[in-house]
Amino acid sequence: MGAADSADYGLLSPAWAGTPAADLTGDRQLLQALLDVELEWVRVLASAGLADPEAPAVVAAVSDASRYDTASLAERAQGGGNPVIPLLADLRAQARAQSPKAAAAIHRGATSQDIMDTALMLMARRALDTILADADRAAAALGDLARRHAATLCVARTLTQHSLPSTFGLRAAQWLHGVGAAAQGLRAAAADLPLQWGGASGTMAALSLAAGSAAGNGAPVTAFSLSASLAQGLGLAEPVAPWQTNRLPVTALGAALQDFTAAAGKMANDVLLLSRPEIGEVSEPRAAGRGGSSAMPQKQNPVLSVLIRSAALAAPGYGLQLNAAAAAADDERPSGSWHVEWQALRSLLRLAGGAAAKLAELAEGLQVSTDALARNLETAGPLVVSEKIMAVAAPLLDDGVPGRGKEVIGGAVARSLSSGEPFEHLLRSAVPTDLLSDAELRNLLNPASYLGEAAALIERITTAYPGKPSA
Amino acid sequence: MGAADSADYGLLSPAWAGTPAADLTGDRQLLQALLDVELEWVRVLASAGLADPEAPAVVAAVSDASRYDTASLAERAQGGGNPVIPLLADLRAQARAQSPKAAAAIHRGATSQDIMDTALMLMARRALDTILADADRAAAALGDLARRHAATLCVARTLTQHSLPSTFGLRAAQWLHGVGAAAQGLRAAAADLPLQWGGASGTMAALSLAAGSAAGNGAPVTAFSLSASLAQGLGLAEPVAPWQTNRLPVTALGAALQDFTAAAGKMANDVLLLSRPEIGEVSEPRAAGRGGSSAMPQKQNPVLSVLIRSAALAAPGYGLQLNAAAAAADDERPSGSWHVEWQALRSLLRLAGGAAAKLAELAEGLQVSTDALARNLETAGPLVVSEKIMAVAAPLLDDGVPGRGKEVIGGAVARSLSSGEPFEHLLRSAVPTDLLSDAELRNLLNPASYLGEAAALIERITTAYPGKPSA
Amino acid sequence: MGAADSADYGLLSPAWAGTPAADLTGDRQLLQALLDVELEWVRVLASAGLADPEAPAVVAAVSDASRYDTASLAERAQGGGNPVIPLLADLRAQARAQSPKAAAAIHRGATSQDIMDTALMLMARRALDTILADADRAAAALGDLARRHAATLCVARTLTQHSLPSTFGLRAAQWLHGVGAAAQGLRAAAADLPLQWGGASGTMAALSLAAGSAAGNGAPVTAFSLSASLAQGLGLAEPVAPWQTNRLPVTALGAALQDFTAAAGKMANDVLLLSRPEIGEVSEPRAAGRGGSSAMPQKQNPVLSVLIRSAALAAPGYGLQLNAAAAAADDERPSGSWHVEWQALRSLLRLAGGAAAKLAELAEGLQVSTDALARNLETAGPLVVSEKIMAVAAPLLDDGVPGRGKEVIGGAVARSLSSGEPFEHLLRSAVPTDLLSDAELRNLLNPASYLGEAAALIERITTAYPGKPSA
Amino acid sequence: MGAADSADYGLLSPAWAGTPAADLTGDRQLLQALLDVELEWVRVLASAGLADPEAPAVVAAVSDASRYDTASLAERAQGGGNPVIPLLADLRAQARAQSPKAAAAIHRGATSQDIMDTALMLMARRALDTILADADRAAAALGDLARRHAATLCVARTLTQHSLPSTFGLRAAQWLHGVGAAAQGLRAAAADLPLQWGGASGTMAALSLAAGSAAGNGAPVTAFSLSASLAQGLGLAEPVAPWQTNRLPVTALGAALQDFTAAAGKMANDVLLLSRPEIGEVSEPRAAGRGGSSAMPQKQNPVLSVLIRSAALAAPGYGLQLNAAAAAADDERPSGSWHVEWQALRSLLRLAGGAAAKLAELAEGLQVSTDALARNLETAGPLVVSEKIMAVAAPLLDDGVPGRGKEVIGGAVARSLSSGEPFEHLLRSAVPTDLLSDAELRNLLNPASYLGEAAALIERITTAYPGKPSA
Repeated sequence: MGAADSADYGLLSPAWAGTPAADLTGDRQLLQALLDVELEWVRVLASAGLADPEAPAVVAAVSDASRYDTASLAERAQGGGNPVIPLLADLRAQARAQSPKAAAAIHRGATSQDIMDTALMLMARRALDTILADADRAAAALGDLARRHAATLCVARTLTQHSLPSTFGLRAAQWLHGVGAAAQGLRAAAADLPLQWGGASGTMAALSLAAGSAAGNGAPVTAFSLSASLAQGLGLAEPVAPWQTNRLPVTALGAALQDFTAAAGKMANDVLLLSRPEIGEVSEPRAAGRGGSSAMPQKQNPVLSVLIRSAALAAPGYGLQLNAAAAAADDERPSGSWHVEWQALRSLLRLAGGAAAKLAELAEGLQVSTDALARNLETAGPLVVSEKIMAVAAPLLDDGVPGRGKEVIGGAVARSLSSGEPFEHLLRSAVPTDLLSDAELRNLLNPASYLGEAAALIERITTAYPGKPSA
Repeated sequence: MGAADSADYGLLSPAWAGTPAADLTGDRQLLQALLDVELEWVRVLASAGLADPEAPAVVAAVSDASRYDTASLAERAQGGGNPVIPLLADLRAQARAQSPKAAAAIHRGATSQDIMDTALMLMARRALDTILADADRAAAALGDLARRHAATLCVARTLTQHSLPSTFGLRAAQWLHGVGAAAQGLRAAAADLPLQWGGASGTMAALSLAAGSAAGNGAPVTAFSLSASLAQGLGLAEPVAPWQTNRLPVTALGAALQDFTAAAGKMANDVLLLSRPEIGEVSEPRAAGRGGSSAMPQKQNPVLSVLIRSAALAAPGYGLQLNAAAAAADDERPSGSWHVEWQALRSLLRLAGGAAAKLAELAEGLQVSTDALARNLETAGPLVVSEKIMAVAAPLLDDGVPGRGKEVIGGAVARSLSSGEPFEHLLRSAVPTDLLSDAELRNLLNPASYLGEAAALIERITTAYPGKPSA
Repeated sequence: MGAADSADYGLLSPAWAGTPAADLTGDRQLLQALLDVELEWVRVLASAGLADPEAPAVVAAVSDASRYDTASLAERAQGGGNPVIPLLADLRAQARAQSPKAAAAIHRGATSQDIMDTALMLMARRALDTILADADRAAAALGDLARRHAATLCVARTLTQHSLPSTFGLRAAQWLHGVGAAAQGLRAAAADLPLQWGGASGTMAALSLAAGSAAGNGAPVTAFSLSASLAQGLGLAEPVAPWQTNRLPVTALGAALQDFTAAAGKMANDVLLLSRPEIGEVSEPRAAGRGGSSAMPQKQNPVLSVLIRSAALAAPGYGLQLNAAAAAADDERPSGSWHVEWQALRSLLRLAGGAAAKLAELAEGLQVSTDALARNLETAGPLVVSEKIMAVAAPLLDDGVPGRGKEVIGGAVARSLSSGEPFEHLLRSAVPTDLLSDAELRNLLNPASYLGEAAALIERITTAYPGKPSA
Repeated sequence: MGAADSADYGLLSPAWAGTPAADLTGDRQLLQALLDVELEWVRVLASAGLADPEAPAVVAAVSDASRYDTASLAERAQGGGNPVIPLLADLRAQARAQSPKAAAAIHRGATSQDIMDTALMLMARRALDTILADADRAAAALGDLARRHAATLCVARTLTQHSLPSTFGLRAAQWLHGVGAAAQGLRAAAADLPLQWGGASGTMAALSLAAGSAAGNGAPVTAFSLSASLAQGLGLAEPVAPWQTNRLPVTALGAALQDFTAAAGKMANDVLLLSRPEIGEVSEPRAAGRGGSSAMPQKQNPVLSVLIRSAALAAPGYGLQLNAAAAAADDERPSGSWHVEWQALRSLLRLAGGAAAKLAELAEGLQVSTDALARNLETAGPLVVSEKIMAVAAPLLDDGVPGRGKEVIGGAVARSLSSGEPFEHLLRSAVPTDLLSDAELRNLLNPASYLGEAAALIERITTAYPGKPSA
């Protein structure tokens, strides 16, 4: 065995294996992000006259992740507890071979936590770009679905049982409600990802020392002006102060990612229920090689939903690691809890990325069986509007005694349930025609007449969360 | 045994027992919040002409939580799976005794999830008021501490070891950084707490039906106008749509509460370390009956920090329950996961409330030993500025060979560490006086000359998070 | 507001409110357990001649929990961080009023952690007695169900889709498999609950000092002989050494409790699925006042399963707190993590207790619809035995070309699925009668002929986990 | 980007990167375990006359994991939701090229869950072998440390403050207590890892069908005899029944792994505290390239402990995923929760493996400073035995008034603490020489005279957990 043996390509993680987010968060791209931060810093230093003018070009030439041995770096990271230390040694060696001056500029005034935290934010931003694109696709597709089925009746279910009539459009809109709001949260988190740049103990001392040595031509160079340039160069936000021990930027991102997997999970849970053979209201889009069973050729498993659900179930464990790590911080660099965040954050990005990709495909290709929707509503029977009957018909029978009508109707319901007599007949017998005409009674029992604000809610939700179809 | 036996007064929860947040989230106040929601709804209905004009007064008269038997309600809540169902029965019975018409107006068009979700938001808002007041007190006190000790030197520690010189003011400012940012997040969450009002299946059907029966004089009454009035009356936000299955409002609040306990925990972790007898840099404020040990009279335990830390350690488990519940939602009302949220949310409010109260006391009364701060920095020795020496003195010795100076200085460091010879002497021997005068060398070794942007960071942080002392 | 306001009677916890386990773990009974430990210790001391002979009677007279103010103790527990300190003050005061000598004997050589840890184990054991009785009832009922339906055909489902024929008896047996194994684990955990008795820092120093002062008549009195007597008196196990910082006894109990709620949750998940109107294979036992909906009189919610599921979903968050606390331990008494365990352990006991009580009721009263079981199997169609057809019929068609038969059968399956033609006819056409007679073909397609070891598995499981019906 | 880009070599996981456990749980070895299970099953079938006699040799020839493309398998695993499906296609193709008959025997009667669950158990057993070897080394080293320092005095600390005298040997023994008990639990878990072999829906139907076709010479072949042979061949335990939906074997293993990382974490927490410069009682073993800081050459970070602690902090998040997954199981194969377990279980094995390797190194090389131990105990002063003084000297002063002596001594303590007067003098003044001679007083104040059962406890713990040094 050897370094390569430990590699995890996602064999145990079909929820994210093979997705862009997995690649964007693999060791290779993490390594690239670390190198990108070091390189951008050299550029900032050179621009301020604090590094050899040639340094950026020299460092750029050795900043491709493929030049470094990831597995070896991983193993050597044990020595100092993080991968920046061995990477820096290798990077400097490669740069030194071309220009000792350029090599000397690398990492000036920075500490390994600066590089790690900033590179993780950078890697997160890159992964979020693809996650958000998929989330937008999913949102757009769900919006279409909601509008398309705005008038498709179905039966709503609460605590697993038939409750009221609703529309399939509202169900899709509610999936969008969750997914859209979570995507909005993710987008806000992506825009807030901050640079971390405080030096060995968060005082910015080395940085300040370096800035002080800048020649005075032009705008004054300060530790803050340097770090602002770096943030801008990397496309990250400037924080109030170093956050090496205040991990809110990490927990906030973790919370947003979990909200997204939860919203995706809600839809997947429903698809798993609704695609059961006995319910049959929806089915997953088919794709070659997906969902089949080698032993049982007739079987078609809702694999997209199974995997989205698995991502949603797994995510809180990682979110918890981030929150627990934040709570365990101590001193001016946490002794162990900081190290917990890295893999947890990566895992959340991967799960969200996998869930987003699968959700987009699911939402775009979901098959809806209007037959099954109608059949299940029909099976639910007239009692599915019992709430309305209680509100409308019962008062007609009160005859001055509040509650009397409810008793009468309740009796009819009970009798229908126990004897199997059609409720419609029992209701007709209970309410005189002069109080409720046959037409009124039919209308009363018509599920389509008891949809409340379903259409307006679809409008509100789809307007609030428009999504964006893939280009 | 009986109902009262199951009561939890906080005997196992000294982190929050006896605090206002505990009372504001007890069963009594939860019950009150449920009643307040029902009452406000009757008011909204009456204003819209949808309830007897006397109904609000009648319902108000029976809406004091002390009129109801909490333990009995808790037991009866098993029947339907939530406490609204038995409470409603008791509330209607009490109202009916005074006015059947008023009783008939209660809960019209609502469902138990509407009441539960909304009441929990209301209870949360009330608890957040007190939590935020304590958080503001803590922030103000930390700001004072930071400014007061802006020039108090200390040694920073990373991965438990002495790293660089810093100031105690910056350490306090970093506590504020965490606490202030988390309080800001909590305040934002408090302002966003939404009404949940969707009726039995989120279609607002009964609501819509009720609105339709309103007399047409004045502005049109709609399901949305009614729920908007209710939100306003309760001081809650109006959501885009019912969120009975999209639990982002709950997870967002949970995330904000966890960020707060984590920030408080960070400070507590540090106080626990810094108040160890061998370090002695801070000590907790003393109070009668606190921290003593019956068996060991000399012992003074840092109980505030112990309890804050316990809150910070416990909180992620509850946050996780919220996130896991959100991910498990299904149908138009989740079958079990919804029920998980209630106790988890309460527990987080209690932990945050306990932590906030204790944090305010800790921050306001923290004793700082400038002697110990100076002693520990002194012990750290001149090598605490080795980073600066490397940056300033090493290049002087390069003599055209980049890296040569670092080797020389590194040799002096190693020799000092192994032989115990004073590093100052070794450095003096290594660097000719013409390159570095005695005065320059003394200044180089002076920790006060290597504080970086500590003062500016204190200023930035205290400006960003001013806090608010108690009135 | 005041102390009573903070009380939690379970209003937010219908999963356990009103159950014996809730009472046995309430503040009152926790207080009683604390008092019981103090009293038993006085008895041990007196037996060894280390306390006044009257002390046990005096202390017994003031050891009823009802003599103490729980809410006040909870509030005062903040002072030292645990409730033993104020309780001890009150207990000693009450004893002193009767006999100063007796009062002096109380708590001799013990520390508050000894009392807390031991009392929590005692409380756990008492709660486990009732939990195990319910678990045994559930197991017995599930065993009956399994045997009763050993020949009742049903369709198995994997990844939500119909897979193979099975029996309802095997499904029930698999519920028993989980519940029985978990109950076995709980019983083992209950038998292992250890005394914790190490004195102020785990050296047993005060204990040893006290033992040393015992008069020498009779067997030698040592710290270990005293603690052994205490363990025996309380019915707890003797540990190898004090475990004040090694929390395996706590995490082990937590793991066993979680396994139980998970096993109960598995059955509840299934009942929630199988009692959906479209599936209808089982329904919950009805009880007055349970499962009804005020607004929708026809609705019958599977409340037992909803609440069991909520317990199963909530439990891991508490288990996590125990594991995280164990990992955070430090020094000779953990500074905060110890305090996290108390409420987490109680909550797990309550959830397991609630789940056990509801599970027993569910298992004893579960209604099985053999009609629905048959209907759903029928709907699954002949393809439910496709695995068998592939194994038996395909080779007949290979005609020397391995795999050819599979292709032919697979074609028939695909054609049946797409065209709706009965698979039976297509199969008949595909396989010559001389290779498979009509009778053989009918038998091949008969689900009852493809049940594998279902009956034997029921036998194995019911034998391994016999359970115990309620007396 | 491409498949290799997603690879995780441990760059973000220095806690386990580069350890044998990482290799033994990488995708390569997981793949090997899957292949080993398929191969062993072919052997069992062939032994029973149910597969071509040549099949084992043919399958063995294509069963080396290096013949398969891990990254491609990971990507294709999305189709069916697990990696067995694509692996089986590739394995059969490779076998078929050599012998169609052999290929036909592969996977006969099995389902992908059988292979996954069993292979994970196999992989776990292999990883546990190395984890336990390291745990045994750590235990042996801790036992040595405990015995070697059985008489080395130190000060114990509770809630961070000095409490009583103790010995460093007892501290080490308590580390052993945790590590030894956890290792015992792990060893028991390793011995219990069961085969999972139930076929497509847990009825063992295909297995039973296959068994039925075995020729009748020799012992009868049954589904159970076949699975028993397989379990024996793989070195796994035989379960009562398939456990495809009862995940106790997985949660039990997870619990044991967490107990181990927690026990290791306890020691790491202590080393992090005790190696702080101001305390200095222990230091980590030095190794080339470990613990250094590039910027601060004097700094030596306790990296082993930092990484062990990070493993201990991370583990509960994974354990939680296992417990939550177990609770979410449904049907005859869980729709998503099963998929959560795989990566969680691997991660726990890796964390435990990394922690064990580092713990062994830490325990074997821990440097103990008897000077610092003595100095800190000295600093704690005579009040560190105040508990003893209260027990021994106070009664001498009671003079018939119980409690009077305690007041006198308490007064002396308070005066010493506030005025700085040596307690010894104050005590001497307070207690007449005839009640307590000078020699008795000196002995009373001698910490070495108040060690309780420290020595006996070391003996008990080291006897219970002997460990095993590396060969």
